Amino acid sequence: METDEAIRTRRSVREFTREPVTDLELDRLLEAARWAPSGLNNQPWRFMKITDAELIEKLSMMTRYRGVVAGAGALIAVFLDAGSMYDRTKDLMSAGAAIQNILLEAQDMGLGSCWLGEILTRSDSVKSELAVPDDLEFVALIALGRPVERERVGVRHPLSELVIPLP
Amino acid sequence: METDEAIRTRRSVREFTREPVTDLELDRLLEAARWAPSGLNNQPWRFMKITDAELIEKLSMMTRYRGVVAGAGALIAVFLDAGSMYDRTKDLMSAGAAIQNILLEAQDMGLGSCWLGEILTRSDSVKSELAVPDDLEFVALIALGRPVERERVGVRHPLSELVIPLP
Repeated sequence: METDEAIRTRRSVREFTREPVTDLELDRLLEAARWAPSGLNNQPWRFMKITDAELIEKLSMMTRYRGVVAGAGALIAVFLDAGSMYDRTKDLMSAGAAIQNILLEAQDMGLGSCWLGEILTRSDSVKSELAVPDDLEFVALIALGRPVERERVGVRHPLSELVIPLP
Repeated sequence: METDEAIRTRRSVREFTREPVTDLELDRLLEAARWAPSGLNNQPWRFMKITDAELIEKLSMMTRYRGVVAGAGALIAVFLDAGSMYDRTKDLMSAGAAIQNILLEAQDMGLGSCWLGEILTRSDSVKSELAVPDDLEFVALIALGRPVERERVGVRHPLSELVIPLP
């Protein structure tokens, strides 16, 4: 799929078929994440691939968006590694860039994805369930799967509201 | 260009030809930014398009990477709008996603780009020069232009160092 099309047609997908997401597919998504830019090229992001049905079910209980997580074929948990960080503001933005690469690559592969943030309120429970070391900060969960076919409308402000005029 | 190719071949470009970047091209980049995801779809990002040579020169004096900025055909300044933010951690990540859309769209269009963060240390000077209101936080500057042809090598950690094993 053309880059421009992937960017413009990507939508959050919250309903997935039961078809599994393979480890090979997850690696392709993480390969894309790897190529994101970061300040001083510090690459502070870390990832966990989650395909185990029982674990997915447990994590789904930790968010208000239980259905999205429980129905996913796979999850990618995203962390920032304190030992690689140099500037929280910039490191968070580079994590966002890496996540966007995953979402666009998923779109390109015909996979649906949903970037979940609300679950960060249960960060301690998630990290404990995943036995993640203290020096990793949980910053996002991505739900993945084959999208159930239906129209997904994206709503965005017009460019005129986003562009600040020059002095 | 295929999405996957854009993701894998994008590099920071620090040397540009003198060919200008048009306003139409900048709008196409910002259209891509617009389609990034954000928490609660709050779209907290704001952008300023800068093509005036004198202004570019002035901004170039505010960073150690003067040459990259001074040689750019255009700049996009990226801000977070305090009035639209809901969670600093998530808003910064969504800004990173919007920036990544710009960088990938630029790659797709044959434009070179460089995401500059060091200039944030001179945020007050930049905001004053651009007469930006207080409720906008300056989070990134993107230098843009036609890339001078040369090989650009990207160095990344192998996936094995980025993936945290399951418990």
